[in-house]
Amino acid sequence: MRSINIGLIGLGTVGGGVARLIAKHHDDYVKNYGIDLVIKRGCARRIEEARRIGLPIEHFTDDWRDVVSDPDIDIVVELIGGEHPATEIFEESFRAGKHVVSANKALIGRHTAQLAEIAAEHGVAFRCEAAAAGGIPVVHALEHELNGNEILTVAGIMNGTTNYILSRMKHEGSSFDEVLADAQALGYAEADPTADVDGFDAASKIAILGSMGFRTRITTDDVYMQGIRSITATDIEIAEELGKTIKLLAIARATDTGIDVRIHPTMIPNDHPLASVDGAMNAVYVVGDGVGETMFYGAGAGSFPTASAVIGDIFALAEPISQGQKPLAESRPFGRVRPIRPMADLHTRYCIRLVVEDQVGTLSAITRIFSESGVSISTIRQVAGTADGACQVVFVTHRALEADMETARAALEADDAVRAVGSIIRVEDIDAWTSGVLDN
Amino acid sequence: MRSINIGLIGLGTVGGGVARLIAKHHDDYVKNYGIDLVIKRGCARRIEEARRIGLPIEHFTDDWRDVVSDPDIDIVVELIGGEHPATEIFEESFRAGKHVVSANKALIGRHTAQLAEIAAEHGVAFRCEAAAAGGIPVVHALEHELNGNEILTVAGIMNGTTNYILSRMKHEGSSFDEVLADAQALGYAEADPTADVDGFDAASKIAILGSMGFRTRITTDDVYMQGIRSITATDIEIAEELGKTIKLLAIARATDTGIDVRIHPTMIPNDHPLASVDGAMNAVYVVGDGVGETMFYGAGAGSFPTASAVIGDIFALAEPISQGQKPLAESRPFGRVRPIRPMADLHTRYCIRLVVEDQVGTLSAITRIFSESGVSISTIRQVAGTADGACQVVFVTHRALEADMETARAALEADDAVRAVGSIIRVEDIDAWTSGVLDN
Repeated sequence: MRSINIGLIGLGTVGGGVARLIAKHHDDYVKNYGIDLVIKRGCARRIEEARRIGLPIEHFTDDWRDVVSDPDIDIVVELIGGEHPATEIFEESFRAGKHVVSANKALIGRHTAQLAEIAAEHGVAFRCEAAAAGGIPVVHALEHELNGNEILTVAGIMNGTTNYILSRMKHEGSSFDEVLADAQALGYAEADPTADVDGFDAASKIAILGSMGFRTRITTDDVYMQGIRSITATDIEIAEELGKTIKLLAIARATDTGIDVRIHPTMIPNDHPLASVDGAMNAVYVVGDGVGETMFYGAGAGSFPTASAVIGDIFALAEPISQGQKPLAESRPFGRVRPIRPMADLHTRYCIRLVVEDQVGTLSAITRIFSESGVSISTIRQVAGTADGACQVVFVTHRALEADMETARAALEADDAVRAVGSIIRVEDIDAWTSGVLDN
Repeated sequence: MRSINIGLIGLGTVGGGVARLIAKHHDDYVKNYGIDLVIKRGCARRIEEARRIGLPIEHFTDDWRDVVSDPDIDIVVELIGGEHPATEIFEESFRAGKHVVSANKALIGRHTAQLAEIAAEHGVAFRCEAAAAGGIPVVHALEHELNGNEILTVAGIMNGTTNYILSRMKHEGSSFDEVLADAQALGYAEADPTADVDGFDAASKIAILGSMGFRTRITTDDVYMQGIRSITATDIEIAEELGKTIKLLAIARATDTGIDVRIHPTMIPNDHPLASVDGAMNAVYVVGDGVGETMFYGAGAGSFPTASAVIGDIFALAEPISQGQKPLAESRPFGRVRPIRPMADLHTRYCIRLVVEDQVGTLSAITRIFSESGVSISTIRQVAGTADGACQVVFVTHRALEADMETARAALEADDAVRAVGSIIRVEDIDAWTSGVLDN
């Protein structure tokens, strides 16, 4: 049996998990699959990281070039994150004929299609299961198992921190700031929570999953982003009264006029499978025209779940190498180029919470604004008065155009009867996700 | 580009779905993946079936040997079900050097390991994604993407008919017989519902998924089976009062003393992801020591969902063939042989509903029986009296041994104070499913 030599660049949380999981299961991999995985080189800035995870010191280097240029290495595993030197590691590895496995969502979210094409040019494979939704094996499903389908929708909860915050806000009735502070104290949220709570992290992931699902180039910059900072306990209560749950969803849909790709707080029905995904867990909903609705659920982060995805990718390459074959290069990786649909073209429903003057004529002024903007109202309910002569009113619209809703928002903000636009939360048109599924 | 020639044996619900999905997407498969799928031969008993799905008549045969012996055929797709002649189709295909894709759960559930080994001997591949959980790509995940893990638990809702019945009983408060009759009228249940409601269908699937997950031989005959015929509206009400949902779960777990593999009605907490899987949908929960908890959700049956899984398997073979490579044979398919643990060794909790004499001393007699059998009671509650001097009492036990519970059942049935053992439903020890998951 021929060993598979791995060059592991990055020995932190994920790299350490990979090394420890391989150490734990090495003999089982040999016995069950005939795969002999050897971490031939490990690269980190400090030798202590190698010691911590039990890597033999003679396998350690602090220069990634030692890994990429080592002729014995079959697979380079890049786990340092960030754009540089990760880009150079990818390119030099491809040039050296080495396959690459990576969990680098920041880089891959911007350059999925290009990286896949460069890999294909050099006849090597590039795998990134761990870069989207952590341990959940949904990248491979979108690239391979679901190929018989036209993918219609990829949507889901792709950031654990925000799902943890929203779940606690819902169960405890607490405010965003309270829960965030507590989550930071517990280590569930970073000291600078921007990447999570403003949607950047999820944007990389939906760019990757959307590119895979729709076989087109979607990059992080294509994704409309709105985070959860503005969500209040009141919004969550209102959602509950409507039989809905607020989730930060990343959504990509193939429409006649282009790819609709966005991240924002979304109201979904309580009985939708995504609504009951609680705590820090992730879940990706995939709709194909043949398979219909599917969901992939699991841990989106963490040392061992992410390591599980990385090792799954290593196996996908090691299996053919062990049998004397070359891993398949992606054929025509991203054949279609589809336009990204502007956010202004979105058709959906909206839940609008306004703080208004509690006086005769207010409602009539507001409904006129909606009507003149082309936004049709489905239900109106008064939530609570305030001490100072204002009250809160919640409007739920019929399906409306985002551009018209923006016109209405501007007019509402300018109107004297409206003290504040408390929130505007999209009510997802779940039926649109399955439009195009074939009847059995 | 070289065409991939498919021999499709069986042109019924699934075969028809495969043919129609390939016809719909043929050009996209070429454009996006460089895969040119051609149904070179189609086999059915009647030519009308070929006409119905638009298969050119010159490609039709009513003899499966024409398909298997055709030297142009790359992949034989067996979709007729049953043990014969499916077994012969498999064996002759392997002997002829052809890869096989099949959705035949009855056959594969009995012979997963043997079929994989015969295929490996002949250097061909054998794929069966559609044989377990229909369109959900969980077979491939267990065979490949999750290989980095030791799989600890595979458990789920693997039969749509029974989940549909239990979901309606829960939402409507109806009886099993009422819902079954209605499901039959609507076409959701067969005229003879035995295979579904008594657990045979799910047994094949858990045998397949368990074999894949634990890399050992599990056959349908190894699976303990108990169906849902005895579940009453009262049982469902009691579960709700306990904050639980009754599901027909198929469960396979790796324990120190062997594989625990069983199908029976199970109470699980309402906030467990499997509890909210409603209607005819399926879901498979997979726990690995690295990845932790994952769930794969989707349609477990139906023409196009099943066809999606079949075509996914075809792609797994067509991708290497198109690039001039041989699809990988499974290496050492089932290296471990693990014993099947007897059901008597199960440790779990039980919810027992007894119809008892409403008189002094009854409770003391019953609790003595439990105590003498070694079954420790956690909670007791009286549900409702009946007109004839009896009442119903519900006991929930602590963790107990199945063998001891059986002793208690026999003693209860023999006791004068007990008019009837209404039901004994296992309360699943969900924590045991994740025992062995590595801490991050």
